[in-house]
Amino acid sequence: MKKTILSLVLLGSTFLGIAQTPSIQRVNPTNWWVGMKNPSLQLLVYGKNLKGADVKINYPGVTLQKVNTVENPNYLFLDLTIAPETKAGTLNVEMTKTIQVQKGKKKAIDQVVKITQPFELRVRDKKPQTVNSKDFIYLILPDRFANGDPSNDKFDDMADKVSDRKNPFARHGGDLKGVTQHLDYFKELGATALWLNPVIENDQPQTDEGGAMRSAYHGYGFTDQYNVDRRLGGNAAYLEMVTEAHKKGLKVIQDAVYNHVGINHWILKDMPSKDWLNQWDTYTNTSYRDEPVVDVLHGNKSDFKVQQSGWFVPFLPDLNQNNAFVANYLIQHALWTVEYFGIDGWRVDTYQYNDLPFMNRCNAALFEEYPDMFITGENAVQNIYSQAYHVRNNINLPFKSNLPSPNDFVLQTAINDALNQNFDWGKGFNRIYQVLSMDALYQNPDLNMTFVDNHDQDRYFSVIGEDLNKYKLGLGFLLTTRGTPHLYYGTEVLMKNFKNPSDAEVRQDFPGGWAEDAVSKFTANGRNERENEAFNFVKTLANFRKNSSALTTGKLMQFLPQDGMYVYFRYDAQQTVMIVMSQNKDDKELSTDRFAEIMGGFTFGKEVVSGNTISSLQKIKVPAMSIQVIELKK
Amino acid sequence: MKKTILSLVLLGSTFLGIAQTPSIQRVNPTNWWVGMKNPSLQLLVYGKNLKGADVKINYPGVTLQKVNTVENPNYLFLDLTIAPETKAGTLNVEMTKTIQVQKGKKKAIDQVVKITQPFELRVRDKKPQTVNSKDFIYLILPDRFANGDPSNDKFDDMADKVSDRKNPFARHGGDLKGVTQHLDYFKELGATALWLNPVIENDQPQTDEGGAMRSAYHGYGFTDQYNVDRRLGGNAAYLEMVTEAHKKGLKVIQDAVYNHVGINHWILKDMPSKDWLNQWDTYTNTSYRDEPVVDVLHGNKSDFKVQQSGWFVPFLPDLNQNNAFVANYLIQHALWTVEYFGIDGWRVDTYQYNDLPFMNRCNAALFEEYPDMFITGENAVQNIYSQAYHVRNNINLPFKSNLPSPNDFVLQTAINDALNQNFDWGKGFNRIYQVLSMDALYQNPDLNMTFVDNHDQDRYFSVIGEDLNKYKLGLGFLLTTRGTPHLYYGTEVLMKNFKNPSDAEVRQDFPGGWAEDAVSKFTANGRNERENEAFNFVKTLANFRKNSSALTTGKLMQFLPQDGMYVYFRYDAQQTVMIVMSQNKDDKELSTDRFAEIMGGFTFGKEVVSGNTISSLQKIKVPAMSIQVIELKK
Repeated sequence: MKKTILSLVLLGSTFLGIAQTPSIQRVNPTNWWVGMKNPSLQLLVYGKNLKGADVKINYPGVTLQKVNTVENPNYLFLDLTIAPETKAGTLNVEMTKTIQVQKGKKKAIDQVVKITQPFELRVRDKKPQTVNSKDFIYLILPDRFANGDPSNDKFDDMADKVSDRKNPFARHGGDLKGVTQHLDYFKELGATALWLNPVIENDQPQTDEGGAMRSAYHGYGFTDQYNVDRRLGGNAAYLEMVTEAHKKGLKVIQDAVYNHVGINHWILKDMPSKDWLNQWDTYTNTSYRDEPVVDVLHGNKSDFKVQQSGWFVPFLPDLNQNNAFVANYLIQHALWTVEYFGIDGWRVDTYQYNDLPFMNRCNAALFEEYPDMFITGENAVQNIYSQAYHVRNNINLPFKSNLPSPNDFVLQTAINDALNQNFDWGKGFNRIYQVLSMDALYQNPDLNMTFVDNHDQDRYFSVIGEDLNKYKLGLGFLLTTRGTPHLYYGTEVLMKNFKNPSDAEVRQDFPGGWAEDAVSKFTANGRNERENEAFNFVKTLANFRKNSSALTTGKLMQFLPQDGMYVYFRYDAQQTVMIVMSQNKDDKELSTDRFAEIMGGFTFGKEVVSGNTISSLQKIKVPAMSIQVIELKK
Repeated sequence: MKKTILSLVLLGSTFLGIAQTPSIQRVNPTNWWVGMKNPSLQLLVYGKNLKGADVKINYPGVTLQKVNTVENPNYLFLDLTIAPETKAGTLNVEMTKTIQVQKGKKKAIDQVVKITQPFELRVRDKKPQTVNSKDFIYLILPDRFANGDPSNDKFDDMADKVSDRKNPFARHGGDLKGVTQHLDYFKELGATALWLNPVIENDQPQTDEGGAMRSAYHGYGFTDQYNVDRRLGGNAAYLEMVTEAHKKGLKVIQDAVYNHVGINHWILKDMPSKDWLNQWDTYTNTSYRDEPVVDVLHGNKSDFKVQQSGWFVPFLPDLNQNNAFVANYLIQHALWTVEYFGIDGWRVDTYQYNDLPFMNRCNAALFEEYPDMFITGENAVQNIYSQAYHVRNNINLPFKSNLPSPNDFVLQTAINDALNQNFDWGKGFNRIYQVLSMDALYQNPDLNMTFVDNHDQDRYFSVIGEDLNKYKLGLGFLLTTRGTPHLYYGTEVLMKNFKNPSDAEVRQDFPGGWAEDAVSKFTANGRNERENEAFNFVKTLANFRKNSSALTTGKLMQFLPQDGMYVYFRYDAQQTVMIVMSQNKDDKELSTDRFAEIMGGFTFGKEVVSGNTISSLQKIKVPAMSIQVIELKK
């Protein structure tokens, strides 16, 4: 137990049978707040031999509704309600248990053990902001971005004691202070929000077998939800980062993992009950296939169970979210995180592998407190039906997801296809045009989190053959089409690589993030000419976007790609922006007659990136392999 | 005018100015029925100088509501209502018009012209049957199937006077009598319904330019809706074919074309009004793209109009279905066809190019009279959203299609992919498994018309590399999965070819359909060993299917393809059929533990094609590249 003060009073003197002596080691959540809309709270209390203890709480407004016991006598789950008028302060959980102790060879006698466990109820002081299509999200893998505090790179009492930048699977020392130190960099680039890969403690071993997944530097194997990893700076550094980010006008999205935990998670060493995890007679992996879940007409129970309850990998045990204690534990941690750190939104890892009714309850619990909260789910699927199935959609389905936003993998694949294919029937720009034409399946496609790559994928610049024109086409599209875009760290300075031989290749250290780095790509001087061209392209567009109602909340009108060109408009009552993309090898001239319904009344335009004025809109010059973002003027 | 008797009474003697004399040449529909649920009828009356005529109808129960005139004085559109109690019989449309005639150099005098136009109201005597997933549809291109009447192969008074089997673009002489003569063949094969490519008059020229589309033998360029093409045998032969088919228990599906007509259509020579057609300042082709219509969030008017009102090809003028007279003309012809010939269902050509609200009204008019009518629409699209958009679906869209059935192109492509790809992530059998997993988008996927090829596509047997094992996999799947399957003529005897150099290659004459043919594939003796193996495979399965409630109306439960095998079940309270498909190069053994939820209680099985008994269901032997259709038994 790290944060709560244990008050253990033993009546009587030394005795044997100490193993039986009741004690408390952890209480989760580690604190709570008064004034929550939901008055219920379930405290997980873990220690030794707690089953059978008499529990009392004497605090105005707080009622102990029920003491739940489970298989393992070392746990109690206390159901509390906190009345609306309850005052902040510290309550005491009083436990009393009579145990038999035997001193020497004397007859066993009853001993009464009393434990007083303080628990803090705080005043809510955080105000999460709404993340939506107005935002431009910058995705950071904390271990690989910047090392702000070299003193926390490694700890001898942790499972992985190594910090070694030369080893792709080891931790490299990046941390939250490193992020905090570069808030101005994100601002300069035009980002408005940060999404960090998970920051929660991953006290997991790093081994060579199996490649990158066996490392824990990526953060997806939690070992204690209530502690940010010490190597990232712990809770204090995260709180500081969020606070400082907010001061700079940057929102923060946290990466949630509800489906599984790391195999070193503290609770697995002494589980409340066997069914804390999804258990199988023999190890069963998930199929990684979405169809068994979305196939509501023809699916079967067997494949469904494997998909939902099979383990993601052997060292990430699968939580049984149908166990109400597990569910409460996860949901309360989500709420606790928002209140404790003040984060603004969530990205949920491996969304489709979670129990989906549980996810709805978890999301609903967040919406109850924060109605407009941005929650975006990862489903690396390639079909539009499956992607829509997992979010708020316009399909009459027996199961209705309440998730507001998918990570838009379908569009991402289309972007890469569009850039790597020649313009043809169903190819090139037609790929993205077609994907967007199906947007009616979503309730709000503006919330789709759009991207060109992420930490699990080949880096965008490599995928498009390190072609700077394609780079601008793809990122220009990302920043001007519908959706809530994110950029993976380093893409703005042309970081590259394929996931070969391992994921670590696409998770390299940001140059300049470490004091010893020879060059820093954080500054124009440290970037070469191409990198500055890329950086400035993103910076110019992202900053224009920030203040553009049309690009962020306007409607989208797209036209059938023709003659190697894709033309679309973002518009509202205040502003109309015309985007002209070409994937032709030659310069062209674009006649704008087709677009009369949206261009009527405008007489000239201003191209955002170059700053050039386009004096006549009747025919527009379209250079080979180019994107123009033209604000139309009257 | 071909069928109605013109009764022209001229008051007065010979005179000049004869061109002005009113006359009637056509009335469409050519007859109607009493007892229709919809009491309204609009008669198109075409002749000379009819505008301004006084029109009277004196027939009990029939009321002339309105006489509509249009730009062209040679047309009147008469709105009638026919009361429920009206008796069958022949009514007279009486027209009276006063014209000025000038005899020699005398002063012009008024002449009164009276025209009596008889019009027959019949008793309804046809009972269309319901086509649905119980059926197995055999698709025939009438000109290329069998020549039952060599006397009608060509006519000197038609635009295309040639019949030449050596010319791929010319008519070959196949006809409806040829179809009628082979009803027992279809029965033997296990078909329960026939779908013929259009039978309506196509008095279009045949030219060499542009390849197959410039030919009219395929039937998609109507020149007179109310006449079946004489070279197919005319209305009489079609009526006989439908009647004889019904006697054999075979239903008939007619191929409708609402979107366009042939450039030689009689009405185009003297159009009622310019807006009978979708007119453009310069010729405008449809984009052939579905996105402008289905893109309800981001679409634009310009692309929408091109898709909907652009012409399919220059020689198939596009009908303006927003013209109420055009709409009535088309809808009434659909009703007339059902009542006149007794057909049972419709396949609608180029569905998405029609005005979709018009199509809804047209379908609704058919449903009003025949509530369960099978109507299946052709949309050669490759994405599930677009395919679902055009039928009764489960998507909340501003436009709701009432079409019951799509031609399932999405599944067809998946079948071909499945057979031509090696089993892998997202490939091989996974393609069909994935497509079916999205069926919740449809209101009733059992009505999806499924197929492996049709008259517009490379022939199935060529597409799969003339591999008889793949052939059985694909057709075995077709006959056992959900949907309403159709087979393209000749596929059962391994007819093959790619559309190279023209469509005619996949529309070759059925061997044995012509008296002069050296061999006949209609009989076992005429087929070689492989052809008989193919034929018997289809025959056995189709005939089993005919009596199998599970395969026709049962539910489908499919399992995630694994280890190169795809296993699914069709089941209802009476019957359970297990289908095991393998695309492995080696024989395998399939453990059935995964399928316990559906196999429980069954102890042995009978494989339908081989007739073999499978005595133990615990492990099933699965030969390489095989399909087994196993009826499970207790």
